[in-house]
Amino acid sequence: MKQGVASVKFEALKVLQINAMAALVLTAMTNGSIAAGDFPDAAASDPNTLGLMQGFPPPTEKRVMQPDSNFFSFPKLRWTVCHIRELMPTKQVSRGLGAPVAFDYALDDGIDAITFTPIGGNKPMTWKESLAANYTDGMLIMHKGKVVYEYYTGCLNEAGKHGAMSMTKSMTGLLTEILVAEGKLDEKAPVSSIVPELKDSAFGDATVRQVMDMTTGLAYSEDYADPKADIWVYSAAANPLPKPADYKGPVGYYEYLQTVKKEGEHGDAFGYKTINSDALGWIISRVSGKSVTDLFSERIWSRMGAEQDGYFTVDGIGTPFAGGGLSAGLRDLGRIGQLMLNKGEINGERLFPAEVADNIAGGGDKAAFGKAGYKTLPGGSYRGMWWVFHNDHGAYAARGVHGQTIYVDPKADMVLVRFSSHPVAKNGVIDPTSLPAYEAVAEYLLGK
Amino acid sequence: MKQGVASVKFEALKVLQINAMAALVLTAMTNGSIAAGDFPDAAASDPNTLGLMQGFPPPTEKRVMQPDSNFFSFPKLRWTVCHIRELMPTKQVSRGLGAPVAFDYALDDGIDAITFTPIGGNKPMTWKESLAANYTDGMLIMHKGKVVYEYYTGCLNEAGKHGAMSMTKSMTGLLTEILVAEGKLDEKAPVSSIVPELKDSAFGDATVRQVMDMTTGLAYSEDYADPKADIWVYSAAANPLPKPADYKGPVGYYEYLQTVKKEGEHGDAFGYKTINSDALGWIISRVSGKSVTDLFSERIWSRMGAEQDGYFTVDGIGTPFAGGGLSAGLRDLGRIGQLMLNKGEINGERLFPAEVADNIAGGGDKAAFGKAGYKTLPGGSYRGMWWVFHNDHGAYAARGVHGQTIYVDPKADMVLVRFSSHPVAKNGVIDPTSLPAYEAVAEYLLGK
Repeated sequence: MKQGVASVKFEALKVLQINAMAALVLTAMTNGSIAAGDFPDAAASDPNTLGLMQGFPPPTEKRVMQPDSNFFSFPKLRWTVCHIRELMPTKQVSRGLGAPVAFDYALDDGIDAITFTPIGGNKPMTWKESLAANYTDGMLIMHKGKVVYEYYTGCLNEAGKHGAMSMTKSMTGLLTEILVAEGKLDEKAPVSSIVPELKDSAFGDATVRQVMDMTTGLAYSEDYADPKADIWVYSAAANPLPKPADYKGPVGYYEYLQTVKKEGEHGDAFGYKTINSDALGWIISRVSGKSVTDLFSERIWSRMGAEQDGYFTVDGIGTPFAGGGLSAGLRDLGRIGQLMLNKGEINGERLFPAEVADNIAGGGDKAAFGKAGYKTLPGGSYRGMWWVFHNDHGAYAARGVHGQTIYVDPKADMVLVRFSSHPVAKNGVIDPTSLPAYEAVAEYLLGK
Repeated sequence: MKQGVASVKFEALKVLQINAMAALVLTAMTNGSIAAGDFPDAAASDPNTLGLMQGFPPPTEKRVMQPDSNFFSFPKLRWTVCHIRELMPTKQVSRGLGAPVAFDYALDDGIDAITFTPIGGNKPMTWKESLAANYTDGMLIMHKGKVVYEYYTGCLNEAGKHGAMSMTKSMTGLLTEILVAEGKLDEKAPVSSIVPELKDSAFGDATVRQVMDMTTGLAYSEDYADPKADIWVYSAAANPLPKPADYKGPVGYYEYLQTVKKEGEHGDAFGYKTINSDALGWIISRVSGKSVTDLFSERIWSRMGAEQDGYFTVDGIGTPFAGGGLSAGLRDLGRIGQLMLNKGEINGERLFPAEVADNIAGGGDKAAFGKAGYKTLPGGSYRGMWWVFHNDHGAYAARGVHGQTIYVDPKADMVLVRFSSHPVAKNGVIDPTSLPAYEAVAEYLLGK
């Protein structure tokens, strides 16, 4: 009966999701030619103020979804970042069934008045001003293990979830570092020895470590202005929607990865390309026998006292998007930050060896990183899919497009997590009013 | 940049989801012409045994998802029922951020050996045999507030979620009964006075109560064999995927409901039509100012000690599917059953007035129900979107296609919750080995 249900043919279809997938893989880029000033400010673009998706039904002009909305366009993205599961298929990262472990609080009302000078600027800005300047949706600051600052606005509240974007990469990297530290994965092994299907691709003769640190040489373009850019083939493959009948391209992340050609030599230069994270996701699933979501839940999420489940977007065969698919609660990413700061311990339990955090915090190849020319990250590096600043606080971070961060500052004993929905998808535009602000808070807390 | 991303035109597209939406609205029907014996048995169709969706990637022939799979066909549905969120957009029913309240246990190993005679049969079957006979994925029995029996197999485990199918209707009905009992909604009011957009539809001059009890007179056919049946227009409207460029039909549940024409008189006869539940979802959202998912979370799910979040599928404008969209954990539906059994109290807190449960348990119009001719439910009725058996135990139930139930037996102080993935989408086929089994367990527990 149902088995006989005829398929429905659509002659033409605007695929919203493909835009979203593209946006999700949009990556931290060096320089921004678009300035935030070209867009309505944080208050004017607040999705509640705009009335986006409010009402039963929402008025047509207030809909973020169908009939043909690009839901990652600004200001719609300010609603979308908290509602990704309502727009596409997703896979759960279970917190398990136990009781959450609540944070201790020691709120510090002096933080809002902290001032800093933006990179390239000449007049000071307060911390509080920086929140709106960066279209911040949520901000959590922890010092010595206690919450000293917590802020929600726009689409987010304490029980909500927000897209982590490319911070997902750091979660995939963390899981990989754990498997390496436990001896379950050899970082020096060629990828082809673990995933034979990648033998003839660019990844085949790269080492696992080169993938982890994104020093692979890959012929892969993310130039969104070029309709023939690789990102479009990748997006079509990754799109969870059914493929058109005449579709001949790769299906899902795994098939796409097999098509990637080599360009240059592995190990020479840092090249921030999301497909490295997806290859890493395949590697750790093959090694562990678990999906990235299940592995993440079993090793981390279900053991850290999480308050909420997280989730990943998936491709059409159920593969979690290891390069950008995570959505989660603000506090739960605070728990991830604390785990890193405490080198694998949380709530009195050790979840992974200390060397995992030490290895990430120690950073990667600075010379290779330098070749990529990140103006707001001079002297930095990338290790295990985390960004390492090599500043005098030993700070490192997960970073995601539109302003997401988990910022770990060991010297200040500080973890800072930000969710945001900045109109510009370039960290080069967001960093000038973010990184010096984080440093100023760290200095302030260091004196406490 | 992203804003300029061109839409992608697909010339033809097999829309898996439309089949799924159709299946989700498949309803409890009277008689089954298809017998379970036409399909592989429970062990042979276990999705783990079959290796469905296992491996990275799953082999093509083991995929439930793309490229063109009908994921609600048997035996694929035995995987799908636990993974609906991985196939389509969904909206969360939040459990909140507090600690779950665990059940007390008093497991009774005598239950497996209980025997009963199937309806229309002549030889006894054991309780344990009935589990496989009904393709049971999960079974929870509570007696005097304690768990006496708990069972998981196939795709389900204690931390998993399963499609509740049309049991969703009973959740929508429960919320409505609460609003009525609280005086926030007049059950005698015509629907048009609450949702003016429905004025010219069949629902316009129906009372809220007629919608709640499905005694509306609606020109609406769910004959899946008829390509012109209303169910197809409904499914196309409800489908969360972007509509084809030349699509002229209604978008989403709300627009569809406005097109439904009247047939016969309201109040005359029970007619089990899913669109009543969707109309009710609209009514309670309009009255409360909240989506069905948010209302459900605020009034029930976040206050009953739930272990897991639940979720609903949504249409293309984010409307939760009030007629069939819920997925949830087995134990959490046990909490719903306990709430009903205890007339609104759980964990020492009152969530709704006792009259809500009394009203449902008291049943609806038996004469109107009798006209529908349900052979396995003689003398029954339907009230507030719950099925009332009018047996000497005062039992009533939420019921969903493929064998789902929350069975509340006040006399035996018993709640029974079953998730299953029976190959036949007709309760008339499943009831003969289910309803007498529940009654036998109730009799057994009554003697304890």
